[in-house]
Amino acid sequence: MSHQQADAIDVAAIREEFPILQREFDGQQVVYLDNAATTQTPDPVVDAMSDYYRESNANVHRGIHHLSQEASEAYEVAHDRVAEFINADGREEVVFTKNTTESENLLAYSWGLNELGPEDTVVLTEMEHHASLVTWQQIAKRTGASVEYIRVDETGRLDMDHAVDLIDDDTAIVSAVHVSNTLGTVNPVSELTNLAHEHDALSFIDGAQAVPNRPVDVKEIDADFYAFSGHKMAGPTGIGVLYGKQDLLEDLNPYLYGGGMIRKVTFEDSTWGELPWKFEPGTPPIAEAVGLHAAVDWLEEIGMDRIETHEEELAAYAYDRLEAEEDVEIYGPEGGPDRGGLVSFNLEGVHAHDLTSIMNDHTIAVRAGDHCTQPLHDKLGVPASTRASFYVYNTREEIDKLVAALDDARQLFA
Amino acid sequence: MSHQQADAIDVAAIREEFPILQREFDGQQVVYLDNAATTQTPDPVVDAMSDYYRESNANVHRGIHHLSQEASEAYEVAHDRVAEFINADGREEVVFTKNTTESENLLAYSWGLNELGPEDTVVLTEMEHHASLVTWQQIAKRTGASVEYIRVDETGRLDMDHAVDLIDDDTAIVSAVHVSNTLGTVNPVSELTNLAHEHDALSFIDGAQAVPNRPVDVKEIDADFYAFSGHKMAGPTGIGVLYGKQDLLEDLNPYLYGGGMIRKVTFEDSTWGELPWKFEPGTPPIAEAVGLHAAVDWLEEIGMDRIETHEEELAAYAYDRLEAEEDVEIYGPEGGPDRGGLVSFNLEGVHAHDLTSIMNDHTIAVRAGDHCTQPLHDKLGVPASTRASFYVYNTREEIDKLVAALDDARQLFA
Repeated sequence: MSHQQADAIDVAAIREEFPILQREFDGQQVVYLDNAATTQTPDPVVDAMSDYYRESNANVHRGIHHLSQEASEAYEVAHDRVAEFINADGREEVVFTKNTTESENLLAYSWGLNELGPEDTVVLTEMEHHASLVTWQQIAKRTGASVEYIRVDETGRLDMDHAVDLIDDDTAIVSAVHVSNTLGTVNPVSELTNLAHEHDALSFIDGAQAVPNRPVDVKEIDADFYAFSGHKMAGPTGIGVLYGKQDLLEDLNPYLYGGGMIRKVTFEDSTWGELPWKFEPGTPPIAEAVGLHAAVDWLEEIGMDRIETHEEELAAYAYDRLEAEEDVEIYGPEGGPDRGGLVSFNLEGVHAHDLTSIMNDHTIAVRAGDHCTQPLHDKLGVPASTRASFYVYNTREEIDKLVAALDDARQLFA
Repeated sequence: MSHQQADAIDVAAIREEFPILQREFDGQQVVYLDNAATTQTPDPVVDAMSDYYRESNANVHRGIHHLSQEASEAYEVAHDRVAEFINADGREEVVFTKNTTESENLLAYSWGLNELGPEDTVVLTEMEHHASLVTWQQIAKRTGASVEYIRVDETGRLDMDHAVDLIDDDTAIVSAVHVSNTLGTVNPVSELTNLAHEHDALSFIDGAQAVPNRPVDVKEIDADFYAFSGHKMAGPTGIGVLYGKQDLLEDLNPYLYGGGMIRKVTFEDSTWGELPWKFEPGTPPIAEAVGLHAAVDWLEEIGMDRIETHEEELAAYAYDRLEAEEDVEIYGPEGGPDRGGLVSFNLEGVHAHDLTSIMNDHTIAVRAGDHCTQPLHDKLGVPASTRASFYVYNTREEIDKLVAALDDARQLFA
């Protein structure tokens, strides 16, 4: 199947590769709009992992036997493929972790715990996911560093004047989310990185909601570190990525210790191996790396530009349809280039959990909660929101179903 | 297929479930004797994961929609199943990590980094895998604690008199490997745990080479913490387990921060959720948990007692056949109840890497190296050894092929 024959995405052909989208509950086909939590996994990705287990499974780190050579090659090449996908310089800059959260913690422990002190400030944004917010907060507590938050304005965008104010010579690192998983805001991460660099601070970008959905070029952003997950980009669970500039990663000590990451061990002390392996102790996510490689191939066959356009259109359509409803409050910017493929909202008088439950009665899968951004929800003045998030296989008709289901909620809770 | 009709394992029937064992290189069928590095994955385990992706894939943490309910249920029940398998009290005592190495680091960070100090001693054994040796060594360096090593005697067993000497009131934790991945020694882990408890110290057991191969009952051992990996027990990569006694886990703070593990987050501070989720931040290894559940089912259908017997017999047979060769040096105890299913050895005058390469010419997969026990190899006075390790699908005929291939090495290097 070729996805690239027309300018628009051939959604019908793509959906053929996702048997789960054909599932029905109570005779109604699944409308899967929970892609910011996890995307579905196309057959070629699932098959790549099954084939790995049935044909090449072995432990890596360059065992001498045939199967270990095959597995090692597959595992290492997956790093190259991911590097190419985000325009990193090579496998040395791509560390496989278990998820984005671990990628953030890796940096917080390997760099933050060793380098931060009471004179330092970590600058976050008010829209950070708990993965970076809680991590930096706790590592700061341990090291005596301060944490400051760039304000989110009433449109759901970062107040960049406030950013200019906050980022100063005390700033040790600026950690910002590329695309907000709650507001959908696409943040000016190059600008934030430049501000950090002007003050000799590092920049870390949480790209969990960006890499799956749009072309991401780490060199263009100039981020020092950048993180994302396999399971949000048509890949498997159990694998995440930490990109880092090679000279910076070389200077860091690993935070997890074990086999496969050492140069020399005695009873007294140890020294570390080469990049990226020094950050990947123990048996790594081998089958998952094979799956992630297949996912990258699959996404690029469609084309990241076209995926971005498709999602931007769906988000703008959803925004407009929901905005036309007088009793719906939407969070974050209107549809356009600075909104990613998701819309969070509340229906007046109905708790997000109840609304989501009614959606589920129509087999519409959306997510209710604080989406791991509790402090942001506190600021918005709501305990929770309902989030519809889109991927390459979603359609306007699915959004129409979502909007139609609002009437049920109104009737039940009127 | 039923595996339990006879007392002996029906190896031929079991091998049907492993297509990889039918692979040939240069016309010779794979002889897979690298099971201590990773075991092969039977079809029912691979299928369970594929089915998960094709039918139930969603993020967990109790989303409201049907797919998330299915995925959450599958993920949580996998904890229950693993708890039952090792006789833990329930899911609260079973934390899913990315591998055994992370399980050890979790404990070293969550407990060691906060509790160890210059007055404390960590007692290890000389046969520890780097996963625990390097981890405790580095956390000790950071906290000022001392590390001491229980001696390995000339038979490859622990010197228990030395253990009694070393473990005293300064001991904060005793961390020991259940079955040595190099020597094959089955250590008296209950006895070590008792010694630790007599001095109010904790016990941690690295069970990576035990849980896959023999019945393990954490209550019988009375270990405070116990770790193992999915990929060494017919399960997937990307998942490991840390068992801990519930009251101890409750007292520990998590070391990784993120979503899904918190109770309440503000811009200023955070509090933690319930066991085991507080130790599993971010999107966990969901498909991998489904695979691990299937692996446990598969193993128990065969019967852990029968697997233990099968491996003990193969190890004794391999030991005897190799011992009969005058130019072979074997490390660790002779065949019997205190040797697990692996034999490490060297052929006089031939480097382990060369020997392994010759084995590979016969499509025999064994592993050469220090097996992540460099200090032990230093003590043995060799840079490396060749390790043959067995699993439920291996046969005596495969060991015969290994022994026959030694002649090739002798001829080439004579």
